[in-house]
Amino acid sequence: MANDFTVTPWEVSGEIDYDSLIREFGVKPLDDKLLERLEKHTKGLHYFLKRKIFFAHTYFDTILDQVEKGKKFYLYTGRAPSGPVHLGHMVPWMFCKWLQDKFNVNLLFQIPDEEKFLFNENLTMEETKKWSDENILDIIAMGFNPKKTKIFLDTECANLMYRHACSVAKKITLSTAKSTFGFTDSNNIGEVFYTSMQSVPAFLPTILEGKTTYCLIPCAIDQQPHFFMTNDVAPKLGYPKTATILSRFLPGLQGMHKEGKMSSSIESTTIFATDTPRQVHDKIMKYAFSGGRDTLEEHRKLGGNPDVDVSYQYLTFFLEDSKKLEQIYNDYKSGTLLTGDLKKLTVDTINKFLKKHQARRQKAKKMVRKFMLKC
Amino acid sequence: MANDFTVTPWEVSGEIDYDSLIREFGVKPLDDKLLERLEKHTKGLHYFLKRKIFFAHTYFDTILDQVEKGKKFYLYTGRAPSGPVHLGHMVPWMFCKWLQDKFNVNLLFQIPDEEKFLFNENLTMEETKKWSDENILDIIAMGFNPKKTKIFLDTECANLMYRHACSVAKKITLSTAKSTFGFTDSNNIGEVFYTSMQSVPAFLPTILEGKTTYCLIPCAIDQQPHFFMTNDVAPKLGYPKTATILSRFLPGLQGMHKEGKMSSSIESTTIFATDTPRQVHDKIMKYAFSGGRDTLEEHRKLGGNPDVDVSYQYLTFFLEDSKKLEQIYNDYKSGTLLTGDLKKLTVDTINKFLKKHQARRQKAKKMVRKFMLKC
Repeated sequence: MANDFTVTPWEVSGEIDYDSLIREFGVKPLDDKLLERLEKHTKGLHYFLKRKIFFAHTYFDTILDQVEKGKKFYLYTGRAPSGPVHLGHMVPWMFCKWLQDKFNVNLLFQIPDEEKFLFNENLTMEETKKWSDENILDIIAMGFNPKKTKIFLDTECANLMYRHACSVAKKITLSTAKSTFGFTDSNNIGEVFYTSMQSVPAFLPTILEGKTTYCLIPCAIDQQPHFFMTNDVAPKLGYPKTATILSRFLPGLQGMHKEGKMSSSIESTTIFATDTPRQVHDKIMKYAFSGGRDTLEEHRKLGGNPDVDVSYQYLTFFLEDSKKLEQIYNDYKSGTLLTGDLKKLTVDTINKFLKKHQARRQKAKKMVRKFMLKC
Repeated sequence: MANDFTVTPWEVSGEIDYDSLIREFGVKPLDDKLLERLEKHTKGLHYFLKRKIFFAHTYFDTILDQVEKGKKFYLYTGRAPSGPVHLGHMVPWMFCKWLQDKFNVNLLFQIPDEEKFLFNENLTMEETKKWSDENILDIIAMGFNPKKTKIFLDTECANLMYRHACSVAKKITLSTAKSTFGFTDSNNIGEVFYTSMQSVPAFLPTILEGKTTYCLIPCAIDQQPHFFMTNDVAPKLGYPKTATILSRFLPGLQGMHKEGKMSSSIESTTIFATDTPRQVHDKIMKYAFSGGRDTLEEHRKLGGNPDVDVSYQYLTFFLEDSKKLEQIYNDYKSGTLLTGDLKKLTVDTINKFLKKHQARRQKAKKMVRKFMLKC
């Protein structure tokens, strides 16, 4: 039976059945045993893990093997600069920051500025450069360790990247790329080549340091096809398999069923990292899909449905206090908490989060040079 | 009717019908009118032109238009480093040198080190780097103007090249690449992308100088498919169409019908730029396909066939003295010149050419830095 959802690096739409996605993508669930093993090292688990926002992985056990042997691994994530950063982008970065702090490891942050240029008919290189500059401020504002984090643009570090991308590309046939990504002969030759550039940072420390260095990639699950390619090629080039730890998608304000994951291209229903408190308030109040009943009376009597309510979903991503979250869930389900009040709680939670972010973003402007990879 | 020869950037085989190739490739013959126009500026024609070794072109008239408007153009050629340089490689470079001297123009010399790596299963990046270093000595030894010539490797100048290659790649569908180059789904994704890197130097001065600058590419005709792609894309990116001036192939010692164009991969029947006089002698004496008769008696009586004789072909490429060449042609045809003597004349001509080359190649070692593009 065909899925009624789509998940590729370039399209996420429909109501996603994550269990079915795990099977389809051939990844593994982040089970309790693995989380317990992780917790021994991190002394506590990020609420993203407890709430199954990060819910799947590939080869994450090999990273823990390294840790248990007293060896370092490193983190790799990225941001394709096609517009302003929104809340959905920040989810893997928040988790990256937690992992960096807990394990005191390096982070390679790729800005594949050519990717969006190649895949988006109307986007120019001038625009991707502009968005790169903007997005880098949001990345730095996440609070990564400046001594252990390097950010780079593909086009600006091509002297470093391109030769290794060719090594990867040599091992990937058109046929494989087509079946992995759904390309057809009407795709352009840059789109088809691009995946090899996304593979390179998974090998770069091994190449540069001249010794095997394991890589862990925290990202949303739509990026996994790239890293299947990476791992198809890795052993052929003598590199270790790359591990991924994979998150669900933050839905757009109107919910996954209506607009898929949050997307910069739908401005009115997307909360950006630089939105004002008023903008956040108005967007949520006006657009957030509600699990409430049609009338106040019905809601009080029958209760709301937090499982489909987008405001509530956002709280699961941004409200750290799990007790409070549980209370909200129960109150909304029982009907004591009304939709308007739930929305206000979400507005406050997100505005508190963004206030801190925007203050750090302001300071980030002076830190850019420190974070950029010299290449 | 299918041709019984093949000409692509990666394979040249069979006895080539150049008139039919002109039609098939949609290029134009270098006709007398165009040569007369050129001669007005160059005060004399290179013997490659008189002998139709350079025999075809695309948009060469637009270059003469520029010249006649008092504007500069520039030259672009290249060398994919998969082995030692042989005589066949040097033919377009000799012509490039002549054009550079006559018009006092800049030359961009691309070393697409990733190309051969991508297309040759067994070649490593270490080998392409080694051959790049070697080949650059031969390039410099051609006598190009060090103030007006810049050599660069694709992987080392990828910061400069890759972003523009992506601009080109965005305009080329897989479908177009397949029909132009004969790719199938079993080609690798790097092979398919590569043509966009070969296009970039045709636009680079226009990009870097911020004003329209015309480009002329002297090369063997097998490279033309790349520049069809270049010219397909050029107007879409606002660049002028690139001109090419195209040469025939120097055959391998056993002749086009047996081994196609001269190729580094067939060592015994290829004359390398660094061959000793003895090696040149032995290779020609042993392998050069002869147009002579089976017996001395028959040869004296019926005469030889210079048109199929490979030694004679080589003289058309390397013996500048046209009167002497004509004499040799007539003597061989009439039977007064024997095959052994013709071969000796060829050995002497090539050894004289290589002696000068090798002396300049020795001096080139100290000039490398001066010739390399800073990028």
